[in-house]
Amino acid sequence: MPLTKAEITRLRGLQRKRQREEAGVFVVEGPKVVIELLAAGHAFEAVYATPDWTPPTGVMVTTVTATEMARISHFPTPGPVFAVGRITRADLAPAELARGYTLALDGIQDPGNVGTLIRIADWFGLDRVLLSADCADLYSQKVINASMGSFARMRVIATDLAGAFRTAPVPVWGCDLAGRDLSACPVPAAAVIVIGSEGRGLSPAVAATVTERVTIPRHGGAESLNAAVAGGIVCAHLRRSA
Amino acid sequence: MPLTKAEITRLRGLQRKRQREEAGVFVVEGPKVVIELLAAGHAFEAVYATPDWTPPTGVMVTTVTATEMARISHFPTPGPVFAVGRITRADLAPAELARGYTLALDGIQDPGNVGTLIRIADWFGLDRVLLSADCADLYSQKVINASMGSFARMRVIATDLAGAFRTAPVPVWGCDLAGRDLSACPVPAAAVIVIGSEGRGLSPAVAATVTERVTIPRHGGAESLNAAVAGGIVCAHLRRSA
Repeated sequence: MPLTKAEITRLRGLQRKRQREEAGVFVVEGPKVVIELLAAGHAFEAVYATPDWTPPTGVMVTTVTATEMARISHFPTPGPVFAVGRITRADLAPAELARGYTLALDGIQDPGNVGTLIRIADWFGLDRVLLSADCADLYSQKVINASMGSFARMRVIATDLAGAFRTAPVPVWGCDLAGRDLSACPVPAAAVIVIGSEGRGLSPAVAATVTERVTIPRHGGAESLNAAVAGGIVCAHLRRSA
Repeated sequence: MPLTKAEITRLRGLQRKRQREEAGVFVVEGPKVVIELLAAGHAFEAVYATPDWTPPTGVMVTTVTATEMARISHFPTPGPVFAVGRITRADLAPAELARGYTLALDGIQDPGNVGTLIRIADWFGLDRVLLSADCADLYSQKVINASMGSFARMRVIATDLAGAFRTAPVPVWGCDLAGRDLSACPVPAAAVIVIGSEGRGLSPAVAATVTERVTIPRHGGAESLNAAVAGGIVCAHLRRSA
C-alpha cells in the first residue's frame, strides 16, 4: 500500500530538529545503523524499507518504493531503510553517581566525538554517560551513527553537570592540561570522569566541582588530543589490570 | 593582478587526485589548517587569499578576488585561503625501526582516523608513522585537517608494512581482540605498534610479522573501539609513568 501524502509530508518534515522534538522521535537511515540498534535491543516505532532490503527476523517493516524512499529520506542518495524511534529522556536519580563510573561530556559539540565517547563508555562497561546542555544533540543521526549501536545500550542522561557534581559522593576527575599525571592516579572504586571540549576545556562551573585534575602528559608537538581519544585513555586507565 | 585563465584552470584541476599527483602537490583550504601547517613549519609553494584574510607575518600571499576564490576552491562555500604544498615522499631508512616508537596503520581507510592517529603519534612524541598502501591518502584534505598540523611535524612514511617488519629488530605489537591484556605488557625501549582497521583487523601479511598481540579488554557491550581511540590507548601505555 503506498504511503499517503500526509505520511510522506510528516516523515519528510522530520528532517527538521524542531519537528522531531515536537513529535518526540528521532530518525536513522541506512542498514548498518538500523541493524546495530535492533541488535542492541532498540524497538523502533516504524521501519520503512525498499523491497531489496531484508530485515532481521521478527522486525516489522513498511515496504516503500524507491520513489517514496527518495521523498522521505533526509539524504540526497537514500539507502534502503529509514527508521523512526521514540526519544526517551532519562533523569539522573538521586545518589546515582555514588555507584560505578560516570563519563560526563562538558560542551562536546562535535557529534562524532559524542557518539564515539558513548561507544567508549559502552566498551569499558561504564555505568552511564552524562551530557551537558551544550553537547551535540544525542538524537542527531551523526551522534547515533558514531555510537555504533552503543546509543541503545548505554544509559545516557542530559543534565546540569555542575549541579549534579556539587553533591557527588565520589571523586570527580576533570581532564585538563595542567593536572596530575593520569597514569600515576590510583583508580577509585567509583568516580565521575569529565571530558571538556578540545578548544575550550572544562566549563568554569564544572571545573569548580572537580576534585582531581588529571592530565595525559604530552611528549611531542601536538597542541591537544582529540576529546574522544582523551576519554578513551582515561577509561582504559580505570580498567587497567596492572 | 588577476589570475590568468590558465592558472585558474590549473588550480581548479587540483580537485582531482590524479592531477595533484602528476603535479606533485596537495591542497588545503581554510584559515585554521593553513595556519596550523605554517605554525608547524610547513613552507607552502603558494598561498592564495582574499583581501579579508590577514596572513601570519612573513607569509607571502597572492591576493585573489572572492570570484576567483570561488573558481579555484574545491568547496561549494570557499573560505578566504587556498594553499598549495609540495608532496614529499619519505623512505624508510634501513634499521630505522630499531630506534624509538613507530605507529603503523594497516588499512585504515577513514581519513579522519588516519589524521587523528598522526596527531596522537605527535602528542606522545613517537618517532614515525607508517602507512600501508591501502590507508587513506596522506595528502587528502580530510587527513591533513584531522591531523591538526601534526601532518607537518611527524615523519610519515608510506611503505610495505609486512616487508619492513619481517626484519625489524624490535617487538612488533599488533592490536587485536584476542591478545595479551595491554595494561599487563611491559613497555619495550623501542617498538612498532600496528593498528588495523576496525572492520577487518590486521591484514594477514602484517599479522604474520607480529611478535606480541595486545588487547584492550572489553568490559561492556560495544563490538569494537574506534581505531584512533585504540591507537591513543596503546600510545598512552607506552608513555605511562607508573
